Amino acid sequence: MAAAAVEVGERRKKVIIDTDPGIDDAMAILVALRSPELEVIGLTTTFGNVHTAVATRNVLHLLEAVGRTDIPVAEGSHVTLKKDSKLRIASSCHGSDGLGNQGLPPATTAKPLDQPASAFLVEQANLYPGQVTVVALGPLTNLALALELDPLFPKKIGQIVVLGGAYSVNGNVNPAAESNIFGDPDAADIIFTCGADVLAVGINITQQVILSEADREKLEHSDSKYARYICKSLAHYFDYHSQVYFTKGVYLHDPTALLAAVNPSLVTLAEGVVRVQTAGITKGLTLFRSTEKWYADMSAWSSMPTVKVAVTVDAPAVVELMMQRLMADD
Amino acid sequence: MAAAAVEVGERRKKVIIDTDPGIDDAMAILVALRSPELEVIGLTTTFGNVHTAVATRNVLHLLEAVGRTDIPVAEGSHVTLKKDSKLRIASSCHGSDGLGNQGLPPATTAKPLDQPASAFLVEQANLYPGQVTVVALGPLTNLALALELDPLFPKKIGQIVVLGGAYSVNGNVNPAAESNIFGDPDAADIIFTCGADVLAVGINITQQVILSEADREKLEHSDSKYARYICKSLAHYFDYHSQVYFTKGVYLHDPTALLAAVNPSLVTLAEGVVRVQTAGITKGLTLFRSTEKWYADMSAWSSMPTVKVAVTVDAPAVVELMMQRLMADD
Repeated sequence: MAAAAVEVGERRKKVIIDTDPGIDDAMAILVALRSPELEVIGLTTTFGNVHTAVATRNVLHLLEAVGRTDIPVAEGSHVTLKKDSKLRIASSCHGSDGLGNQGLPPATTAKPLDQPASAFLVEQANLYPGQVTVVALGPLTNLALALELDPLFPKKIGQIVVLGGAYSVNGNVNPAAESNIFGDPDAADIIFTCGADVLAVGINITQQVILSEADREKLEHSDSKYARYICKSLAHYFDYHSQVYFTKGVYLHDPTALLAAVNPSLVTLAEGVVRVQTAGITKGLTLFRSTEKWYADMSAWSSMPTVKVAVTVDAPAVVELMMQRLMADD
Repeated sequence: MAAAAVEVGERRKKVIIDTDPGIDDAMAILVALRSPELEVIGLTTTFGNVHTAVATRNVLHLLEAVGRTDIPVAEGSHVTLKKDSKLRIASSCHGSDGLGNQGLPPATTAKPLDQPASAFLVEQANLYPGQVTVVALGPLTNLALALELDPLFPKKIGQIVVLGGAYSVNGNVNPAAESNIFGDPDAADIIFTCGADVLAVGINITQQVILSEADREKLEHSDSKYARYICKSLAHYFDYHSQVYFTKGVYLHDPTALLAAVNPSLVTLAEGVVRVQTAGITKGLTLFRSTEKWYADMSAWSSMPTVKVAVTVDAPAVVELMMQRLMADD
């Protein structure tokens, strides 16, 4: 049995989810826990949808609720890379508790590691060089701090799947910026240009992937504790989308990025340099330059490492896969 | 006869072309002179493809060559709105003389007005309130200076058709910026937000409008002095496009903007706020926010006047109309 478990484990992709739950973060984590392709070797927390302390609390609650407190949790930075503690917290979208204002109690026994997220990321990258995928669902502060701790982190980490950016479309915080990148533009620019194998999934992709009311009803009638867990916070998320976006469904931002790590064929990619504007009216803007374009003038994009950016998505397949995973028998 | 001429004149759109010839600027001016829908009431010069002094020289040469020295020419600013004289001059594209390195002599008798471009623009806007269309084919310095001279200029001018910006696509100076906006981003941000009736035609539109080798041969075999004039500089323009863009044809940037003023149905429009990033790595970036999008957060786009941005173009119709106008009997 032990040998067989190791064999299965070796075929699975080791994943650390850096997350700020957040309703769709919680969905992504639940999907990851139900995906046989992945071995979730840790969760690290960050700010964004909520403050980092609340993110940690929510992650621990979720793991306890589904009986997976075996997974280590490392708390991340409470401030941006430049130590700015005036954060933009998306409480209107996710509720002040990040999970739809359910008034959840704290986890009873589960606790985070003493180690901060950045140190945990570096440790795991050194333990399994080239084998760890980080699915980054919030601002990229913890990853930039990991790079500060270990300059070789970009080469040791396997892949970084970034949920972030708005490529050739308006942002969701303001016309220029998407919220995860806006949350720490300096960290984002460092990660996009650090030479790691980065795959960016922006809102140009994730706003195509919509969970409908009918899908939500199916989840509500499921016996799976994973489906039931997420349904408790979905009402708030649907209400927000209805009021702000005038949509009857909700965007599956974080689950889409997670599932792009599970099954890369769900998206198609373009390769090029992404830079982030870090100040001014377009602070947080992500600007992609295709490798196919040539310029006479030098610019901030010249001679920089490239990343991959998702440009199309099989949206129905993403929704279907997410539903399957959440509703599978416990 | 005089009465009939006035009647025709009243039906025509009064146009001032603000220009930095430039090979495609010269094409646009020639097309304007051959368009019965337009009455060209003046040309103002700016920097960009060439320095302003060379632009003035080229405009005068062109008008003399086609016998239209009746049209007043007002020389514009030699520096940006912030008095920066380190300009980016696109001599590789247009030749050091702006017209394909033909070694043209200066105009023999034609001279510019004593009045600077900005004063001429204000004067004409006051003379014909609401009736003057400015077709702005270079950086927007002269227009911003006109606004400095007369704060009511935006309300007195009829329409400003701006050739400038890269809406949801990479720029042509660098991944962020299109050259006319990059030439004076501060002036551009002022004009886009001044409340005037602005129609912006960006490279997302003009790089779809291509003059082919076959078109060029037709122009070369035409008896029209207008066609013959432009053919002398086209070889340089074709060579540049072949080397830089790997295209066999050339982009018709300036003629497309001019023809959008002649026949607005050649393009379809979206309405929204455009702001220009004026510093940092994305300096010169134009960012459009659709009026249909709503944001909870205030931003530089909130409560600003809207402009119209061209989003589609009937490219074959633009090329055909330009060819007709250039080849019509003198």
